[in-house]
Amino acid sequence: MTNVFLGDSFLLTNDTGRALFAQCGDLPIIDYHCHLSPAQIAADGNFANIVDVWLGGRTEGGFYGDHYKWRLMRANGVPEDLITGDAPDEAKFAAFAATMEKAAENPVHLWTHLELRRIFGITDELTPATAKSIFARTNEMLATPEFSRRNLIRRANVEVVCTTDDPLDDLRWHKVLASEKSFQVVPAFRPDKAVNIERPGFAEWLNQLEQVAGTGITSFSDIVSALASRVDFFHDAGGRLSDHGIDSFTFADATPAQLDAILAAGRAGQPVTPGQVMQYRTAMLLELARIYADHGWTMQLHFHATRNLNSALFQSMGTDVGLDAMTDESLAGSLAQFLDAAAKAGALPRMIIYSLNPNDWMPISAVIGCFQGAMQQGLTLGNAWWFNDTRSGIRLQLTTLAEQSLIGNFVGMTTDSRSFLSYPRHEYFRRILCDLIGEWAERGEITDDPGRLAELVRNIAYFNAKELFALTSQPKAEKGEASQQI
Amino acid sequence: MTNVFLGDSFLLTNDTGRALFAQCGDLPIIDYHCHLSPAQIAADGNFANIVDVWLGGRTEGGFYGDHYKWRLMRANGVPEDLITGDAPDEAKFAAFAATMEKAAENPVHLWTHLELRRIFGITDELTPATAKSIFARTNEMLATPEFSRRNLIRRANVEVVCTTDDPLDDLRWHKVLASEKSFQVVPAFRPDKAVNIERPGFAEWLNQLEQVAGTGITSFSDIVSALASRVDFFHDAGGRLSDHGIDSFTFADATPAQLDAILAAGRAGQPVTPGQVMQYRTAMLLELARIYADHGWTMQLHFHATRNLNSALFQSMGTDVGLDAMTDESLAGSLAQFLDAAAKAGALPRMIIYSLNPNDWMPISAVIGCFQGAMQQGLTLGNAWWFNDTRSGIRLQLTTLAEQSLIGNFVGMTTDSRSFLSYPRHEYFRRILCDLIGEWAERGEITDDPGRLAELVRNIAYFNAKELFALTSQPKAEKGEASQQI
Amino acid sequence: MTNVFLGDSFLLTNDTGRALFAQCGDLPIIDYHCHLSPAQIAADGNFANIVDVWLGGRTEGGFYGDHYKWRLMRANGVPEDLITGDAPDEAKFAAFAATMEKAAENPVHLWTHLELRRIFGITDELTPATAKSIFARTNEMLATPEFSRRNLIRRANVEVVCTTDDPLDDLRWHKVLASEKSFQVVPAFRPDKAVNIERPGFAEWLNQLEQVAGTGITSFSDIVSALASRVDFFHDAGGRLSDHGIDSFTFADATPAQLDAILAAGRAGQPVTPGQVMQYRTAMLLELARIYADHGWTMQLHFHATRNLNSALFQSMGTDVGLDAMTDESLAGSLAQFLDAAAKAGALPRMIIYSLNPNDWMPISAVIGCFQGAMQQGLTLGNAWWFNDTRSGIRLQLTTLAEQSLIGNFVGMTTDSRSFLSYPRHEYFRRILCDLIGEWAERGEITDDPGRLAELVRNIAYFNAKELFALTSQPKAEKGEASQQI
Repeated sequence: MTNVFLGDSFLLTNDTGRALFAQCGDLPIIDYHCHLSPAQIAADGNFANIVDVWLGGRTEGGFYGDHYKWRLMRANGVPEDLITGDAPDEAKFAAFAATMEKAAENPVHLWTHLELRRIFGITDELTPATAKSIFARTNEMLATPEFSRRNLIRRANVEVVCTTDDPLDDLRWHKVLASEKSFQVVPAFRPDKAVNIERPGFAEWLNQLEQVAGTGITSFSDIVSALASRVDFFHDAGGRLSDHGIDSFTFADATPAQLDAILAAGRAGQPVTPGQVMQYRTAMLLELARIYADHGWTMQLHFHATRNLNSALFQSMGTDVGLDAMTDESLAGSLAQFLDAAAKAGALPRMIIYSLNPNDWMPISAVIGCFQGAMQQGLTLGNAWWFNDTRSGIRLQLTTLAEQSLIGNFVGMTTDSRSFLSYPRHEYFRRILCDLIGEWAERGEITDDPGRLAELVRNIAYFNAKELFALTSQPKAEKGEASQQI
Repeated sequence: MTNVFLGDSFLLTNDTGRALFAQCGDLPIIDYHCHLSPAQIAADGNFANIVDVWLGGRTEGGFYGDHYKWRLMRANGVPEDLITGDAPDEAKFAAFAATMEKAAENPVHLWTHLELRRIFGITDELTPATAKSIFARTNEMLATPEFSRRNLIRRANVEVVCTTDDPLDDLRWHKVLASEKSFQVVPAFRPDKAVNIERPGFAEWLNQLEQVAGTGITSFSDIVSALASRVDFFHDAGGRLSDHGIDSFTFADATPAQLDAILAAGRAGQPVTPGQVMQYRTAMLLELARIYADHGWTMQLHFHATRNLNSALFQSMGTDVGLDAMTDESLAGSLAQFLDAAAKAGALPRMIIYSLNPNDWMPISAVIGCFQGAMQQGLTLGNAWWFNDTRSGIRLQLTTLAEQSLIGNFVGMTTDSRSFLSYPRHEYFRRILCDLIGEWAERGEITDDPGRLAELVRNIAYFNAKELFALTSQPKAEKGEASQQI
Repeated sequence: MTNVFLGDSFLLTNDTGRALFAQCGDLPIIDYHCHLSPAQIAADGNFANIVDVWLGGRTEGGFYGDHYKWRLMRANGVPEDLITGDAPDEAKFAAFAATMEKAAENPVHLWTHLELRRIFGITDELTPATAKSIFARTNEMLATPEFSRRNLIRRANVEVVCTTDDPLDDLRWHKVLASEKSFQVVPAFRPDKAVNIERPGFAEWLNQLEQVAGTGITSFSDIVSALASRVDFFHDAGGRLSDHGIDSFTFADATPAQLDAILAAGRAGQPVTPGQVMQYRTAMLLELARIYADHGWTMQLHFHATRNLNSALFQSMGTDVGLDAMTDESLAGSLAQFLDAAAKAGALPRMIIYSLNPNDWMPISAVIGCFQGAMQQGLTLGNAWWFNDTRSGIRLQLTTLAEQSLIGNFVGMTTDSRSFLSYPRHEYFRRILCDLIGEWAERGEITDDPGRLAELVRNIAYFNAKELFALTSQPKAEKGEASQQI
């Protein structure tokens, strides 16, 4: 067999790819989109045990943990009690181990074993036979200071963590974390609650926004102004990115008067029609795009998730518990109208556009190619997200981006994760990247100059993200500086 | 060249894959979805000749035969007379041979030559130059007792054949076949005629259902009860699966009174609106899901075929003659609503969900992941069906299933065929499976333990299907028993 | 590294593929769909410099040049002045060179370097460091008679150039070019202006059609007759193909009276509803299909582009300047209705059906398989078009065609280009073709007979196009004549 499981050259099938990975594998990590809790980073402290960190559990606020793993355990017929319920941790861990036995080529299987190796130094495969021992060994380590939350981040060679935060957030933990020397923690602005006027809780959220922004909101322009003040606040705290989860989108024009009426209805808890939701959503995203453009920010749009589909489990467990999927509706037309409206208004910020449905990637790539021009890689197809964070998905995204635009400018990987152990996913990405670019070189399609190939993967792995977001940390490595030849 | 045409290692490109195929290639076949005629199996007897078995012909009831081959011959400009018409068999065979010369990489080309080798022991390529000889040799063999229908099944090492049967069927042939010792023939329940209220013949079918079920049907609950009694009848005959061809589907709620009115209209031959069709379809599928769940059955849903598109040829020839294609409409939203309604009612059976359009496979995978939990691999993305039964299609389905769920639990291949010669498609599938899993192992992404890899492919090839459907035949091989090391 | 950049075996990863390319790489080119200007071919003459030929510029009629390259430069943040504006040519060339540095695996990057090698004999990589030298050397060569427009075509071993022409065209340049001995220039009939009744300029175009056809047009049948007379005119000039850009299509029936009313409204500049547009479009395409069928022509349908999305840039620059993308709407149902209507009317010509969205390729393949029969490969999935003219796209189209129909009958590659330097794209296609078919052979899926494999690739590369379009030029090579063994 060419490679052993997770051996030195795993995922690397050609000499050029192996040489390239040697050039970029140990660069620092800029994780520009994740869902880590800044409060938990600030608090530092240790996890209770491996089940706490891998599977999570329940707090007063609801369930926390890794719904990727929960879905697989459910698919293996594991009762919910052994997943998110009250069963003993060791029994949960055994159920997870039995699930992993069925999960060949699932990224969770690979990530799990990569985390065991890179974080815990454990090379055993997780199976029912090894579960007890691995449970004991990981728990012993997790109890030590070296495995505190901040040390997990430090040991992963992370330079920047970009969290995802509500506009109401006071960013107190980010301020606490300003004293952290090993890595930066910067906020990203995620105003979904401002955009989704149809969701329960909108009116209450608006009341809070008034208080936080110190202004009354009686018109559409008022809410825009209030949000702009929050963007200022985030900017002062080092924020340079926003993020939007846009499950469905149909471009719809509206007059200012219509927008005021829709906002008033939403605030009063009166019915808002689907058409009005899209009018409001369109206008709000355009206004936010203008604000971001004014601040030199990057706007991330995450399209085509669909949430909480299993209503019984949603009612008992809440959001983000593994009940989400993707839509298969048309996107290209409305996306083009949106970008055109922003471009006409001179208010097109740098954007990263993701879709959860990979069928959208070619149409998105074609559409964004029509609106480039104001800046280098102003509009980018986002990296392979969530269900696509697989070898297939990553290769498809990279190939689509390369064939349809300029891969040399790509800002690379994010974990999009809630887990402190998920940084080895950057290794996973870098290996797939180097293998793919190695294939292109080995086929004679791109340069055979080792230095230029190394520069390409180093930029995608680290330097482009660093430059693009104009983050203020000191570099840990020199751009394009390759330590050896291929 | 690495391999010769259909040589020992064809489709196998790595050492691990070759070793794995040695472990699973000769396991018995459980063909849990096909369209063989139980009457023909019972009658046994021989085919008239190679044209009869490969291309078919015409009976009083209409045309029979392999529309995969007919489509290719039409694409080669062969007149219909030489395909399904009255031309001499040898001329038809020559036209088919000339078509095969153009069909590189089409699965029909590969299956044809695999059947020649595995069933007839003929290694010549089928070309115009060899057609006359192959016609003579195959016909000579087909006239011998060793090539009777049942012997074709026996020689293919088939353990279970699962046919596809109308609820009205008296299953008389399955009862006759109960005495067959070499393989089991079990029915599957396919109530499309109950579900498709808008199709001609619905009222007449309902009359027959009343007679067969021995009950009057004047309400929606009556038809549900009548169908439940037929499920009981199939269950007693060994049936454990149902199957549904759902060409289009939009989830639509309805009240019991609405359903009664729609049923009455359908029965009276009065117009039923598209919206009513979907209300009736939704309710009927939910009721059937409940019945299947009560019986511990597996519900197969085959989505997004579209039928009889060529109206001139349809009028002259009828259904299943090669005039079918796939739809490219949205599915994910309605599928999620359907699964949610069934889950809320506590009536979600084990399901295998197929779509003819491979663009649906990622959305389907994401949706079904939200509704797992009641049983091991309760919901599965179905194998690469019909137009997707190609190397590309099989690899895509296996990769999607592995990356999105648990491939270790996959129940594997079906022929979905009307042909007694089609069992080598299981070899085709197993080779592609072993090659793909071999690639994963060779890249170091999954275990390098030969015994565990062998168990994985053996389970997918045979044992999972055996266990899942709780069939009662005696195993011909021990699960996980690998006869040699990799 | 296996290959150096664009070395002898670039894109060829297996021995069989390399041997096959040796058999077909130097066959003549029949470019049956392109956008070269017949006036420019007739005028012959030289390009101003490498920027003129690669990037284009501005004439009184608007902008001309390669919008593929413009889009990439915009994606690199190059100001429009340095792309299509008034900046000095050497500065534009430097900006293009800097863009190419970011464009690994983009086909423009590969084509650019292939053109440098095959046309100019320059093996340097285009980078900011080499830009000045390459600018000088290419310009020196472009000023010589050997680099006149016609000599560029001759030196590329082109046998037939099929241009794309409006029905109003008097084909004067094609007549001038009748005396060209080295290659044929034939027209293709592209009546988009007749089909798109909703577009500005329709009434004026109709007035011109009346004059050119010498007939009054007061009814739908009048415009059909006028167009038929133009098909006759093109036929006499050697035309055997038509082409249609159908950005969106919904099948819609109409009565003759309705069609007359819609035409009258369009002519009078009165509003035409979207539904009327589709009624008119459907009827017009059906009538044209009948006319083409009568003439033995091939009808090309290019579906699912969407144009001029960036309204600000469109207003300043016009059409075909890089503002186009693809739609992601449903196509299969309407396509099936259209083909069925044509088949029922006995008016189904040979067709090549392209979609810009590769998600459509499987549905299209399935639909067209229902309407084959009148002729050999009567309906074909078109080659990988525009955004799909990539290694991924070409492999997907070839694999889909092979798995769903008969690749042996495929008519192969077109440049679809406006550039006189784009013929190396046929080499790009042939290498990818040979590599893919070599993979099939190396896996043992298709014949291992070197002569039959060579015949297959030679037919796809050249002879099928030659036969299919019944062009009258003398062959430069014998069909199936392979000069060496594999």
